Amino acid sequence: MSFPKDLLNGYGNYLQKGFVRHKETHEHLAVYGQKPNVMVISCCDSRVTPEGIFHAGPGELFVMRNVANLVPPAEDDTSLHGTSAAIEYAVRALKVKHIVVMGHAKCGGVQAFRENANAPTLKGDYIGRWIKLLEPAAISLACMPVDKIDDPQLAMEYAGVRQSLKNLVTFPFVAEQVSAGELELHGAWFDIGSGELRVMDPETEVFSVSEEALALEAQNG
Amino acid sequence: MSFPKDLLNGYGNYLQKGFVRHKETHEHLAVYGQKPNVMVISCCDSRVTPEGIFHAGPGELFVMRNVANLVPPAEDDTSLHGTSAAIEYAVRALKVKHIVVMGHAKCGGVQAFRENANAPTLKGDYIGRWIKLLEPAAISLACMPVDKIDDPQLAMEYAGVRQSLKNLVTFPFVAEQVSAGELELHGAWFDIGSGELRVMDPETEVFSVSEEALALEAQNG
Amino acid sequence: MSFPKDLLNGYGNYLQKGFVRHKETHEHLAVYGQKPNVMVISCCDSRVTPEGIFHAGPGELFVMRNVANLVPPAEDDTSLHGTSAAIEYAVRALKVKHIVVMGHAKCGGVQAFRENANAPTLKGDYIGRWIKLLEPAAISLACMPVDKIDDPQLAMEYAGVRQSLKNLVTFPFVAEQVSAGELELHGAWFDIGSGELRVMDPETEVFSVSEEALALEAQNG
Amino acid sequence: MSFPKDLLNGYGNYLQKGFVRHKETHEHLAVYGQKPNVMVISCCDSRVTPEGIFHAGPGELFVMRNVANLVPPAEDDTSLHGTSAAIEYAVRALKVKHIVVMGHAKCGGVQAFRENANAPTLKGDYIGRWIKLLEPAAISLACMPVDKIDDPQLAMEYAGVRQSLKNLVTFPFVAEQVSAGELELHGAWFDIGSGELRVMDPETEVFSVSEEALALEAQNG
Repeated sequence: MSFPKDLLNGYGNYLQKGFVRHKETHEHLAVYGQKPNVMVISCCDSRVTPEGIFHAGPGELFVMRNVANLVPPAEDDTSLHGTSAAIEYAVRALKVKHIVVMGHAKCGGVQAFRENANAPTLKGDYIGRWIKLLEPAAISLACMPVDKIDDPQLAMEYAGVRQSLKNLVTFPFVAEQVSAGELELHGAWFDIGSGELRVMDPETEVFSVSEEALALEAQNG
Repeated sequence: MSFPKDLLNGYGNYLQKGFVRHKETHEHLAVYGQKPNVMVISCCDSRVTPEGIFHAGPGELFVMRNVANLVPPAEDDTSLHGTSAAIEYAVRALKVKHIVVMGHAKCGGVQAFRENANAPTLKGDYIGRWIKLLEPAAISLACMPVDKIDDPQLAMEYAGVRQSLKNLVTFPFVAEQVSAGELELHGAWFDIGSGELRVMDPETEVFSVSEEALALEAQNG
Repeated sequence: MSFPKDLLNGYGNYLQKGFVRHKETHEHLAVYGQKPNVMVISCCDSRVTPEGIFHAGPGELFVMRNVANLVPPAEDDTSLHGTSAAIEYAVRALKVKHIVVMGHAKCGGVQAFRENANAPTLKGDYIGRWIKLLEPAAISLACMPVDKIDDPQLAMEYAGVRQSLKNLVTFPFVAEQVSAGELELHGAWFDIGSGELRVMDPETEVFSVSEEALALEAQNG
Repeated sequence: MSFPKDLLNGYGNYLQKGFVRHKETHEHLAVYGQKPNVMVISCCDSRVTPEGIFHAGPGELFVMRNVANLVPPAEDDTSLHGTSAAIEYAVRALKVKHIVVMGHAKCGGVQAFRENANAPTLKGDYIGRWIKLLEPAAISLACMPVDKIDDPQLAMEYAGVRQSLKNLVTFPFVAEQVSAGELELHGAWFDIGSGELRVMDPETEVFSVSEEALALEAQNG
């Protein structure tokens, strides 16, 4: 069992390029600690890298990644809550100013949920239980559809982000910071094939390419 | 509440550079799905980006990130287990060949654990409960130290990775694939200030800069 | 508190007309007991009377009516289950050959569910808890829509009937009789305004005016 | 599994006769909703149709039907309560002015209760648990008989109606409306063979053919 050669090769490349570019930032971050402005909650999917998509350097994004970029609601039990712990750390210890929940196209977690809707979850079925967090999203989608989307996979990907944003404010420490104007919550969705980023309008909850992003594209293009 | 301008700027940059570079890969991944060879379990810390450190492109790494890069042991209860769900998905659905648990220097989660050792965890204290996963690591470290390290923070960072690797094989689906030679488990540790990557020797459980990495560095440098 | 005069007037009318027409049937049914062929599970709604819609005389339909014509799944607990008790009585004691679950337009129970999707149910909120039986229907609707219906209220009315039919076969005594070819389960939906009856195709689960009903209408018309 | 032909035939008949007679009422009810004045709680028995017995048209009666026309007492638990939900909906949402609990002769549910008095209820025995709701009725009957009736089946049918009326006022929303003079509760009993309707005197709790009904019969006859 030796360390994967591909990873070591990639690491060699990183040392020559990526690290050198950010050398001073790294030294500074090692001494003074991290102070990211933004937390991103994203999927584990290998095709969706927050630091890549937002072209972010070291120290800029505090990144929680789990299957289907889900936020559970606050719970007063004694179970483990890895995602909730990360959110608490970001908000209380790091005092981030923004939390972005970023969904994406072709999400395998969302697909698994749809294919097993209402299936019983067996003991030891971690995925099955985890993605049941999408159940309230499905109920909202069926009862109060925000917009008309013919693709049920996409509709559920959006609904999942909306539900995670709703769940975020069930944590008192999130709700307080939001009320105080110290924290903003955002929804986003990334299209793997086209690289398109859609941003959720906080009022209408509709996802679309933001005008600002379009302007930037035009400017850059 | 408008979407953070920094992120939109970064995204504009990504579209012009990163996405263009991988355009065909993205189109292929959108149609044929992801097939990553490697899962990385890493910290949410904004200074530690697996795709950056391993210079990995889209589709290469399935990345779970939580506070202090922890793997809980297998549990037969009905609670949520986000990390376990991600591991199950990587091993069962994606059939990854490697899982890398990567710790790092200056880990805030490890530090919080050390500063609150044996403190009771209050209701609603998600971080406190989560990092209690380090307790068996601390006990091992105190009772059976692998090597002599004067820095207790670093020693605990290493011990955390070792414990997560031990917990990984408590999942039957991991143990089976490891026994069958279809899955390898690896420990690693990243130094934020110097960019140094240390790899754990699977026999001795000692962390050091791998000779292969050194050779690569010499070659590249 | 004297008995409502309208009801007594109606009863006087019934005695002169309805009862006289079925006098012998009544006498026979009083002596030999009921032996209905069909159970109908329908809503309490004052606009939906199974005996009216199916022009059924005394002894023909065993009728359970509750809010939103719901069938709960089989439960192995010690709670009260009025609907399940009625189903058990129909299948085991009366040996009915058909169970028809009949939804209807403008269902207030379905509407209340949609308007309060994911709302917490308070103690003493009987309606709220009861209509939560529609949650799996909503999840199915969001995940695996059977057909494209623009009206979310109608879509949920259909989904509720489909879920109740699924729940029916969770009762062992129902499943056994269905397997043995001794019992058939049917879905239907009644449009209050037009009087239209739509029947669910057991294969496709799509609701439509049955060709047989159309033929009958043409014949009669 | 095709929809029962008898029902489709009956429906064809209904469309030609029943629906046509009430066409405008139906159209009005579809647009403006139901506003029934009366809720009837009746048995599922195929020989007892409230709309038939009270000669009621669409929109007049909100009808809950369960085995043995039983009302459970108010419960502060989290179980399903279909009958209580229907009562809550009738009183709170529809603001009915009258609730009629109507028993009937030859009730199979009452008979099953009598034949299995004090038998243990097994798991999965829904009927057995449901009709245990008659236990307080039986105890009252044994301890404080209202009148002398030689027929124990009939005595229990009456006692069941009385108990359901007592249980109705255990719901705070029922008790409040009754106290405010906004809601009246009534007991009734229907004789299948003769078509006779007996009404319960609210003071004496004795059932008899109401004088008003007799007068109406004389008038009509």
